[in-house]
Amino acid sequence: MFISFEGIDGSGKSTQARMLAETLRDAGREVVLTREPGGSPGAEEIRRLVLEGDPDRWSAETEILLFTAARRDHLERVIEPALAAGKVVICDRFADSTRMYQGLSRGDLRAVVDQLHALMIGREPDLTVLIDIDPAVGLSRAKGRQGTEERFEDFGVGLQEKMRAGFLSLAEEFAPRFRVIDGAREADAIAADVLRAVQAELQS
Amino acid sequence: MFISFEGIDGSGKSTQARMLAETLRDAGREVVLTREPGGSPGAEEIRRLVLEGDPDRWSAETEILLFTAARRDHLERVIEPALAAGKVVICDRFADSTRMYQGLSRGDLRAVVDQLHALMIGREPDLTVLIDIDPAVGLSRAKGRQGTEERFEDFGVGLQEKMRAGFLSLAEEFAPRFRVIDGAREADAIAADVLRAVQAELQS
Repeated sequence: MFISFEGIDGSGKSTQARMLAETLRDAGREVVLTREPGGSPGAEEIRRLVLEGDPDRWSAETEILLFTAARRDHLERVIEPALAAGKVVICDRFADSTRMYQGLSRGDLRAVVDQLHALMIGREPDLTVLIDIDPAVGLSRAKGRQGTEERFEDFGVGLQEKMRAGFLSLAEEFAPRFRVIDGAREADAIAADVLRAVQAELQS
Repeated sequence: MFISFEGIDGSGKSTQARMLAETLRDAGREVVLTREPGGSPGAEEIRRLVLEGDPDRWSAETEILLFTAARRDHLERVIEPALAAGKVVICDRFADSTRMYQGLSRGDLRAVVDQLHALMIGREPDLTVLIDIDPAVGLSRAKGRQGTEERFEDFGVGLQEKMRAGFLSLAEEFAPRFRVIDGAREADAIAADVLRAVQAELQS
């Protein structure tokens, strides 16, 4: 089973991905917890190439190609082998993040992302957990831990609101695999909802 | 005018690209001489990522994505601006090298290369000069200057023969823009043929 977590910065999705991994491991399942961009040695190198340095060094199109290359490597080297071995794969961000970010920055880029995805990736998660949160709350959480990804996080509340709407729109577009979970609560309460959604999917 | 040079390793295409650039500059034209993979600061970083390290670190598909990202950067930052400014662009290798190398390694990859090219590059040279040479001659020339590209050059005569056939096949497929020039002669004699082909194209 392939589960992705999506959400705006500070939504708590990374915490929830970790908590789910621990819970499933405690229940005896083999779990691979990974993340994008990155997730395999090669993809991490590509991630560094994209995220470090001058934000204008790559055009949107070149950046999409690099992220697709990283995703392809991550898929081949980490995700597919783990799924083939019967493990649960939990991925902090996957293609929906690319769809949302690029589609938001320029409408025509969503089509480029989708065509590249169809050609070179071709796989969607079985289940995508969207941790939905008010951007004002998310931003105050994210500001506590700014690192190399600050170019993606240093956007302000207005853009975060568009991102939230972008993710909710993807949740409608891909309704069968999306579960939208209210992230403005205690981590344990959110984790319980996440686990219910995953268990329902595992039993189906 | 956008001119590419293609040919197997040791064919002398890089020498010919340089000689043509000098001749056109002496005739008063503004010339940008560039090369692939690489050719722009970003593309050179991607080139290093692909060519250095363990040859098996990237799958063929990931490698094609990375080369396409490098080509997109090179096109946006170097080739298109130079052409827009009325300059002649001479490029040592372009998309035909990717078509040939990848198509040769696995037949189905040629389709992947073509689809990515149509989606993200979309431009062909106005003129492609194929310096054609017997692989035994080419290999002995290439062995004198092995560097970071040795993973592409360390193939032996048998594979070089297939590469030669691959380039000749592309010259047939894209006959209107290809000029095949015999590379088994003195550099000056080859350069004279190259110049004739370019002048004919410039006047057309």
